[in-house]
Amino acid sequence: MARQRIAVIGGVASGPAAAAQAKRIDPEADVVLFEQGADISYGACEMPYYVGGQIDDVDTLVVLTPEEFEKTRKAEVRVGQQVLAIHPNRRRLDVKAVATGHVTEARFDKFILAVGAHARLPAVDGIDAPNVFAMRRLGDARAVHGYLDAGRVQHAVVLGGGYVGVEMAEALRRRGVRVTVLEPHGRLLHGYLDDDLCALVQAVAHRHGVLVRQERADGFDLDAEGRVRAVRTDRGEKIGCQMVIAAIGIVPNTALATAAGITLGASGACAVDAQMRTNLPNVWACGDCVEVERVIDGKKIYLPLAPVAFRTARVAATNAARRGHGAPVRFPGVVGASAVKVFELETASVGLQLREAREAGFDAFATHIKHWSRVSFYPGAKPLHVRLVVERRQGRLLGAQLAGEEGAVLRADVLVPCIRDGWTVHRIKDLDLIYTPPFAPSLDPLLVAANEAAKQVRR
Amino acid sequence: MARQRIAVIGGVASGPAAAAQAKRIDPEADVVLFEQGADISYGACEMPYYVGGQIDDVDTLVVLTPEEFEKTRKAEVRVGQQVLAIHPNRRRLDVKAVATGHVTEARFDKFILAVGAHARLPAVDGIDAPNVFAMRRLGDARAVHGYLDAGRVQHAVVLGGGYVGVEMAEALRRRGVRVTVLEPHGRLLHGYLDDDLCALVQAVAHRHGVLVRQERADGFDLDAEGRVRAVRTDRGEKIGCQMVIAAIGIVPNTALATAAGITLGASGACAVDAQMRTNLPNVWACGDCVEVERVIDGKKIYLPLAPVAFRTARVAATNAARRGHGAPVRFPGVVGASAVKVFELETASVGLQLREAREAGFDAFATHIKHWSRVSFYPGAKPLHVRLVVERRQGRLLGAQLAGEEGAVLRADVLVPCIRDGWTVHRIKDLDLIYTPPFAPSLDPLLVAANEAAKQVRR
Repeated sequence: MARQRIAVIGGVASGPAAAAQAKRIDPEADVVLFEQGADISYGACEMPYYVGGQIDDVDTLVVLTPEEFEKTRKAEVRVGQQVLAIHPNRRRLDVKAVATGHVTEARFDKFILAVGAHARLPAVDGIDAPNVFAMRRLGDARAVHGYLDAGRVQHAVVLGGGYVGVEMAEALRRRGVRVTVLEPHGRLLHGYLDDDLCALVQAVAHRHGVLVRQERADGFDLDAEGRVRAVRTDRGEKIGCQMVIAAIGIVPNTALATAAGITLGASGACAVDAQMRTNLPNVWACGDCVEVERVIDGKKIYLPLAPVAFRTARVAATNAARRGHGAPVRFPGVVGASAVKVFELETASVGLQLREAREAGFDAFATHIKHWSRVSFYPGAKPLHVRLVVERRQGRLLGAQLAGEEGAVLRADVLVPCIRDGWTVHRIKDLDLIYTPPFAPSLDPLLVAANEAAKQVRR
Repeated sequence: MARQRIAVIGGVASGPAAAAQAKRIDPEADVVLFEQGADISYGACEMPYYVGGQIDDVDTLVVLTPEEFEKTRKAEVRVGQQVLAIHPNRRRLDVKAVATGHVTEARFDKFILAVGAHARLPAVDGIDAPNVFAMRRLGDARAVHGYLDAGRVQHAVVLGGGYVGVEMAEALRRRGVRVTVLEPHGRLLHGYLDDDLCALVQAVAHRHGVLVRQERADGFDLDAEGRVRAVRTDRGEKIGCQMVIAAIGIVPNTALATAAGITLGASGACAVDAQMRTNLPNVWACGDCVEVERVIDGKKIYLPLAPVAFRTARVAATNAARRGHGAPVRFPGVVGASAVKVFELETASVGLQLREAREAGFDAFATHIKHWSRVSFYPGAKPLHVRLVVERRQGRLLGAQLAGEEGAVLRADVLVPCIRDGWTVHRIKDLDLIYTPPFAPSLDPLLVAANEAAKQVRR
């Protein structure tokens, strides 16, 4: 059988993972990774910590250089190469060398789309000013870091109070910059936490000098050099600043997919089945450009998180490369689990928020308890908030949110298998979780919360 | 219907929990809690931290005084009252007032045995010397603390390197005392961790000046006042010391039960069914005097841990007090999850060790990986060891052990629901656990371990 040629399009996270996996499955295959930028395989989630100074060297964010990748993963890497079009029926790609503009055709048997996402930007004039930054690419992190080093920034406006907005607000405060966050919902992490936990986040951010305003950017005032010198808001305010961070969300890159005839899902990302197949033969997709199934209710959602990207990449590449050997592998869907540190506060969210649960049609309620991260009188014990979102009739756990100065993130992980398998709070309250004074009270906060929730279930 | 009278015998942990629950279920019942000592309802697990000075005030270990308990829980408390015999058919107890020796009879309809356990002591002369201490009762903690305060202790010998032995060794080091642990297996925490993780514990203890000797106490040399001045070992050594801590294990208190005709299980503790019924009508048992079912293989084991005690107490009391209302409640068995901090090292163990798995008849293997507690280049990241014990043919997870300077204990909890429901390592490796640089790398150590184990499963 002739060697198969597999093209992987996109080089940030899911692309390199897919290319490496394809070579693992079929070491004979020619696997080529296309990336339009200069860097591949880097940790975008670590960028705020580079800006904030916790991580000194931006190069530590690069997991593998193109050379290292080729050497260790045995796949060919073509950086600075933009894929313009996929023609799966003709088994061709149109590829443009970014530096020269020269376009060539390349022959492949199989295609793995791993083109990721781009920052959503507000539709205002001046968004391309040199002191407006998104945080998607390694170049963005370098640029923000350099701009701060130049020392002209006293006040920055962060557009959006989601994970990236909150992480960047903290990073900027660490660099001595005053920070205003414009968040139309008025609450940081509104999309991840129900309101009562958002209030804790708000309080800690406020304590550290982050101002949150329930406003939206409506326009920019530019100076003579074309730099933003003030943000105008939908409430008619004008906020002077020397830097703007755009963190209002991300959008899957789908132009290439739609041009090729790939169907998008309701979320706006590429629709794929559990094998990560698109609707086109010989085209798989993975990472931040696809939607995935939420196991709680079977809904297809857009969940652009790195662990999801890595897993979908492995599934797509295994199926693309296997040539009929073995059984196809399937992506098992997501519970949805994420976390962010906000100064000294750990926050984590798994499964559905109460709002999402109700939107999904569940008759749901939430309980909120406050307990301790350790035995209460053991030194260093911190209050820990646990909020559970529960289906009312059977008591099935649908989601949870935790916040506190210690023990929130890893405790949230405990609920991931429980939610995945549809556990009730009655079963959860009987879990024999660890008790040891320096790390967990005799009744773990998760059990206290499950006990409380179980009382409210009608059954 | 006449008010029922319920006797709860034993006041440390499971007894008060049972008495409080009985009153919750039947507020009309007369519930009486008998305790031969002076204290009830205290946190025995916190005693080493009181001795070590992390907890200043011994009174914080007392959850509720007898007066507070009576006031808030509405059950009557009789301290200093030793139950000599249970006569369930005659519905009577024989009770002795410890102070006076006066014996009376008391009438009850139902009996909940919560008599706990006592320290196993080596069978050597001098074991009752005034400077030999076990760590079971609050009085033991007070006595050790006071003896250390008196300042005569330069060197202490700890008999046994299990949880209590290790915690006490650390506590004594914190008090400036030189410590030798005699552990016949030669390795600290031998009963909880497989050998390669024991080695980590050994190393950290050694770094902190704890000497571990693979020896057993064979006798004591006493001074003129009858105090131990040296421990003689089975290797013929003589170890001078001013204090001995006996921590070679605990034994369920079963004298009262066997005298009454209650059957013991193979573990030596009282046999109970899932409703916590003994073989005698109207007699339930709970806490450290019963054996419980290990869900992994259905074996009855003796697992004297506080969370198990509290849960079995609630089950016993609910069933004793419910008078036919509702359905009986059942104890769902244990996975077995415990942890101990050894100086800066967190160690945790859930489910079966490799040795236990093989003894239980499983064709099992273990994998051991070393990864990071956070993203490796995020400040503060620490190595984390994960050892999984796995059934070879299907890949079912049977147990896990974790050790590292952060993130071991709560990560072990993540595996508790997985082990309880018989998950394979293949399912575990696909869990979407949280990734966030300050708390978890993109592939959590648990997932790295499950991936590694999955490769070794024959299927």
